[in-house]
Amino acid sequence: MITAKARAVYGPDKPFQAAEIKRRDLDSHDVLIEIKYAGICHSDIHTARGEWGPVNYPLVPGHEIAGIVTDVGAEVTKYKVGDRVGVGCMVDSCGECENCRKGEEQYCLNGMVPTYAGVDKYGEPTQGGYSTHIVVKEDFVVKIPDNIELDVAAPLLCAGITTYSPLKRWGTGPGKKVAIVGMGGLGHMAVQIAHAMGAEVTVLSQTLKKKEDGLKLGADHYYATSDPETFEKLAGTFDLILNTVSAKIDLNAYLSLLTLDGTLVNVGAPAEPLSLNVMSLIGQRRSFAGSLIGGIRETQEMLEFCAKHNVVPKIEVISADQIDEAYERVLASNVKYRFVIDTSTM
Amino acid sequence: MITAKARAVYGPDKPFQAAEIKRRDLDSHDVLIEIKYAGICHSDIHTARGEWGPVNYPLVPGHEIAGIVTDVGAEVTKYKVGDRVGVGCMVDSCGECENCRKGEEQYCLNGMVPTYAGVDKYGEPTQGGYSTHIVVKEDFVVKIPDNIELDVAAPLLCAGITTYSPLKRWGTGPGKKVAIVGMGGLGHMAVQIAHAMGAEVTVLSQTLKKKEDGLKLGADHYYATSDPETFEKLAGTFDLILNTVSAKIDLNAYLSLLTLDGTLVNVGAPAEPLSLNVMSLIGQRRSFAGSLIGGIRETQEMLEFCAKHNVVPKIEVISADQIDEAYERVLASNVKYRFVIDTSTM
Repeated sequence: MITAKARAVYGPDKPFQAAEIKRRDLDSHDVLIEIKYAGICHSDIHTARGEWGPVNYPLVPGHEIAGIVTDVGAEVTKYKVGDRVGVGCMVDSCGECENCRKGEEQYCLNGMVPTYAGVDKYGEPTQGGYSTHIVVKEDFVVKIPDNIELDVAAPLLCAGITTYSPLKRWGTGPGKKVAIVGMGGLGHMAVQIAHAMGAEVTVLSQTLKKKEDGLKLGADHYYATSDPETFEKLAGTFDLILNTVSAKIDLNAYLSLLTLDGTLVNVGAPAEPLSLNVMSLIGQRRSFAGSLIGGIRETQEMLEFCAKHNVVPKIEVISADQIDEAYERVLASNVKYRFVIDTSTM
Repeated sequence: MITAKARAVYGPDKPFQAAEIKRRDLDSHDVLIEIKYAGICHSDIHTARGEWGPVNYPLVPGHEIAGIVTDVGAEVTKYKVGDRVGVGCMVDSCGECENCRKGEEQYCLNGMVPTYAGVDKYGEPTQGGYSTHIVVKEDFVVKIPDNIELDVAAPLLCAGITTYSPLKRWGTGPGKKVAIVGMGGLGHMAVQIAHAMGAEVTVLSQTLKKKEDGLKLGADHYYATSDPETFEKLAGTFDLILNTVSAKIDLNAYLSLLTLDGTLVNVGAPAEPLSLNVMSLIGQRRSFAGSLIGGIRETQEMLEFCAKHNVVPKIEVISADQIDEAYERVLASNVKYRFVIDTSTM
């Protein structure tokens, strides 16, 4: 067993504490990664606080992981010591179901193993990236391209792939009008990716506070959704709307912004159900869809896309002692645009 | 002006009465059609009874029209006297907007002109197919193939195209598993069309009452949705579910029957909004969509498809005096599967 330093929560309303956790000895296809940076995702907060269901504490969150390979199992072929690598939201899946065979491990019909708050095939709880080391099966590790620094690489493993995958799937490219709802950790990545894919990009944010940033990141237009005129003015405009906001929205109002055959895709799930007037869809043959991160192969593709187009998140690097404070700031939307923990401070 | 015999309602709770209505003199691109048969669509009932908003009475419903051309305007090129033709849910559109130019007149951004209960470009109320004659712009008339009888052709103009269009758009074909929700006027057409397209077809109906008919029409499987085991057994099965039922459904239950990337398409709009749990979509990247009839070009294509594959509705021909009784039977789901009025009884 390998001992790693970590930051763990011990209950839904408890602060983070320094902890030591065990990582399994390397299986033949495992890779040992010395974690350098771990991003803080909003879903870490929901999970740590038990808002998405009961959790086994202590819990070490973190599924935006960037680091260096420091050991490999006997049969590992994809990585060697010294490689710069990343791990995202999942660390295993059955590998045998129809979806896994398509490279869509995130939709594994037998349930993928999440990077933390899950149970691995050895029956052990998984613990995430707020930690100095992690052991992961090589098939769930991706290579970080040389020209992406490890600190900014970390958020790509969730915020990057979660937005890249639906943008690509629903045809973002030249001649397409794409709206991004929300200018947070996911939204500010989506703007850059959609712009790099060649689309005309509009940000729909509650206020115009982050307008300057949005335009710098590649948005062509920026509107405040708190202004009712926005919905009149943009009616029937977009081929694709990517909604990165998990809060409850007025679905019918957003659907009215889509053109014929347009699609609204949610990557976040509000806790409560949404109310949908079916005529909002029928009237212009619109679709409402959902998308969950992306597969491992597509995650690698996304990293190469970001490397090629110089797309990286804007981050604020914090020390391990600042996690609680960072959580409060995420909840107050007071972060530009992703916190990343420097794990050398563990 | 041309005088036509018709059956009209004079108020939301009034019975049908014999009436004489005026049809406009032929404009240069108009066609005069002697209507032979007119189908009764559930939406006729909603409209006639004012359930979809205020209506100008007297109203002559009917948008499933089959007949013979008896006169043509000076510049008509597509039809000649004696041609067997049909008219569906719309009789005009702007012709200039992006959607019209694509041949998707049903989504005309300036509002298509419905066959009845609309207002035409002359400022006159439109009156539908429960009538002996109608005058329609040639671009909104379709040819009925020789091997389709006029009585069974009529329902194809709404029930046929409304189901053909989404089945085709969402990739129905060999290797695809398609479910049809509802075995009414639309559902029994959808079963035949999806089967003719080569898909594996499942009917999801409230009960098994129409199972024998469903299997004869081409369904491979038939399940009762009143049996909760149906939803367990069929979880994650379908590439496409076409919902032909306008009543409120448990959206999340039906979405759970879709496979990865599957789509649920509604062609009917429940009066009340539906409640949607976004996780039902995200969990397997599913979509919920809506579709409205089809364009004129696609309606012609559908008729040729039906002619080629011997796909026609099962109908019950009635006389003009039986419309009120037929409405009651439609509401009681007591029709196999479409009423068609013989307009010679007007």
